[in-house]
Amino acid sequence: MATIASLPQEQSAIRWHPPSYDIRLETIPVPKIQNPDDVIVKVKLAALCGSDLHIYRGHGGVTAVHTCGHEFIGEVVELGSSYGAASAKGRPALYSSLKVGDKVVSPFTVSCGECHVCRLGYTGRCPEGFLFGSPALEGGQAQYVRVPKGGGTLFSLSDPTTWSSSLSNELKEKALTGLADSSLLMLADILPTGVFAAQQAINHPKVAPVVTGKPWPLCFSQADLAPGNEVGLTTEDRTLTVAIIGLGPVGVCAAVSMLDVVTTRQLPFRIVAIDPIEARREKMKAVYAAIDAGGKGTGDFAVCSIDEAKDKVKEWTGGVGCTAVLEVVGNTSALTLAYDLVRAFGVIVSVGVHGEPPLPLTGRQCYNKNVSLDFGRCPARAMFPIAFDLLVKRQDVFGGVGEAASLIDKVVDFTEAAESYEQFDKGKVGKVIFDPWK
Amino acid sequence: MATIASLPQEQSAIRWHPPSYDIRLETIPVPKIQNPDDVIVKVKLAALCGSDLHIYRGHGGVTAVHTCGHEFIGEVVELGSSYGAASAKGRPALYSSLKVGDKVVSPFTVSCGECHVCRLGYTGRCPEGFLFGSPALEGGQAQYVRVPKGGGTLFSLSDPTTWSSSLSNELKEKALTGLADSSLLMLADILPTGVFAAQQAINHPKVAPVVTGKPWPLCFSQADLAPGNEVGLTTEDRTLTVAIIGLGPVGVCAAVSMLDVVTTRQLPFRIVAIDPIEARREKMKAVYAAIDAGGKGTGDFAVCSIDEAKDKVKEWTGGVGCTAVLEVVGNTSALTLAYDLVRAFGVIVSVGVHGEPPLPLTGRQCYNKNVSLDFGRCPARAMFPIAFDLLVKRQDVFGGVGEAASLIDKVVDFTEAAESYEQFDKGKVGKVIFDPWK
Repeated sequence: MATIASLPQEQSAIRWHPPSYDIRLETIPVPKIQNPDDVIVKVKLAALCGSDLHIYRGHGGVTAVHTCGHEFIGEVVELGSSYGAASAKGRPALYSSLKVGDKVVSPFTVSCGECHVCRLGYTGRCPEGFLFGSPALEGGQAQYVRVPKGGGTLFSLSDPTTWSSSLSNELKEKALTGLADSSLLMLADILPTGVFAAQQAINHPKVAPVVTGKPWPLCFSQADLAPGNEVGLTTEDRTLTVAIIGLGPVGVCAAVSMLDVVTTRQLPFRIVAIDPIEARREKMKAVYAAIDAGGKGTGDFAVCSIDEAKDKVKEWTGGVGCTAVLEVVGNTSALTLAYDLVRAFGVIVSVGVHGEPPLPLTGRQCYNKNVSLDFGRCPARAMFPIAFDLLVKRQDVFGGVGEAASLIDKVVDFTEAAESYEQFDKGKVGKVIFDPWK
Repeated sequence: MATIASLPQEQSAIRWHPPSYDIRLETIPVPKIQNPDDVIVKVKLAALCGSDLHIYRGHGGVTAVHTCGHEFIGEVVELGSSYGAASAKGRPALYSSLKVGDKVVSPFTVSCGECHVCRLGYTGRCPEGFLFGSPALEGGQAQYVRVPKGGGTLFSLSDPTTWSSSLSNELKEKALTGLADSSLLMLADILPTGVFAAQQAINHPKVAPVVTGKPWPLCFSQADLAPGNEVGLTTEDRTLTVAIIGLGPVGVCAAVSMLDVVTTRQLPFRIVAIDPIEARREKMKAVYAAIDAGGKGTGDFAVCSIDEAKDKVKEWTGGVGCTAVLEVVGNTSALTLAYDLVRAFGVIVSVGVHGEPPLPLTGRQCYNKNVSLDFGRCPARAMFPIAFDLLVKRQDVFGGVGEAASLIDKVVDFTEAAESYEQFDKGKVGKVIFDPWK
């Protein structure tokens, strides 16, 4: 096992205690390699995420004390025996190339990268996967964290040969040297989840007529237009109208990603970003203002409360509704609003974490509106190449801390953990990052 | 107005009377042109459809006496004043080209073909649309039927210039001369609805990794594989596993369409076709046996009861589940079975007509399985070019009446209407066609 130096025996970690609202800063053992595929990462920064609040509030059915957090970035300090060119043949490339000292970001779940599910890119549902910061796997709000299946799970921020080929050399250089850790940390969850929402919508077959300019089902057929259907599409027909419900950090990332997609593809668009909380709307407006012209095109972009949004969509579409709705909240009232806003033959993409309540829709409602629904957890590891591209391109948005347009409100030390959870739970602070070494 | 000859004043029609189970053969006036876009069609054949039973049983909330039926084929006998080259410029081509004497098939709903919704190909939800055989629009189980917005609604079986370019001249010739009316009648509803189910599944982004051989989300990106994810897909990964729930005529058409898609694209596949009723399973088996080798490839095809299907999918996929499930029933137990059979990151395509019950799934179930759901009515008019191609190609299946492998059980005259409804309602007979002139 390669180790950067002898690791300490003990570390500080933010720990959750049952039944609820009990966050403690504790001294616990530094994790050790348990399996040959493990990696020990020295955490540089770890973030607090909205979905941490499920457990915090005692809603997750969790009873075991554990280290919190599923968003972290850090440096490899120890590698299991699987790593190295000889043993890693035919496995994910990081089993060959990952080195002690490499800078890495982890997705919020473990994925082996080599099973049937991972090969298809559905890494968020790897059968060997666990969620960091749960009783099954200690989280990243600590000085050190053990990453199982590291070769399949981690993304190297030190090795440009493992990045997407669509990134220019100039941007690769910028990524290596110019990005703040607080910016790179967004890769762990919020940015890929936002990109996941946008990508599911833009690639959905029901959106294809708008994107391709060919009517359903010829939009994905080799056949040409049948003359009975040959009335050409107008610019209005080809205008993608999107609602984004929920402007927490993931919702803002979804908006930035959707703006990037429509601008890159030069699609006419109208986007309405919706949240009942004024502070979140103000954040969204500031982010939009910060995006340079090349990243937001010339379509309409509105930031609205719920009632304003209903009027806006009506005004824009004459009552037809949105081509796609991105639901980034995860409750039944958000799904109901999504249904109200979506057009017939529209798509609702829900990336929120939903709980026990039944879906708030009848079969007849779904049939009558020809609605499509896409649910579920972001396969964050699989999304990294695309999310990383966007992160590097959009430093006008993803670069700062504590400014009006920053997605990160502040960086604090571990002694402020309990207070930060409490304030975050009460909506008094936005995205908080912990520096375990401050 | 062009008329083939003076039409009679009166006609026979199959009429529904409230509150339920009351079907009468009655003499009513022959319809007249009411609007310039209307077409009067002399009905050659009209079919009885499973969804007619909603109203028959009194479940549809309908109270008005009306002529039944939304599947019919016939001949144009009268055209409104909109038809003709001069007035039809910029409108659907049939306003220019449709002639008295032309053979036509109608989708089960009216569509104008020129509004925003129709231009996108979502003809099943045209704001000017009505369902034939409802209080809003007299149905096709009559000697004559009025077709509103005929230029946008009808499909000409006489004019190959209005057909898809993907049909060879040889097949076009065959289509003009060699197809039985009972075969062409399947275009009205059951065949496009089956094709709609298969097309939604095969074009869904969550199926794209299997179809393209590239993992999510690179399956629809210009970016190449990031090496962290470079473990190649195996044949097993690329094998499309599909369950079809419900083997009424639409379910069988969905199976034939899915077989055609996977064979044409040379995709490895496994399809399980499911119905609790033995007679329907036997029909499906006979249809499969009748398809020639070029239309069903070399994948696995199984016909199962519900419990057998669960075991079969488990055996095939090692517990992973189906890539896609086509739900062709329209009730909560079929949706629940679909959820049980679908894989994580799989898609459920539901073309069944659903009623009032809430969807039988919780938000957590949908999140935990990353499931996608597509609901709704087939835009039959828009599907015609593709469905017609399949109809012409697959006369080994769609050609006969009353044989083991025929989707049509028998052709009867109007005097057998009440008895046919009763037998169909009780599951004692399959697809029945009425000949209004017999």
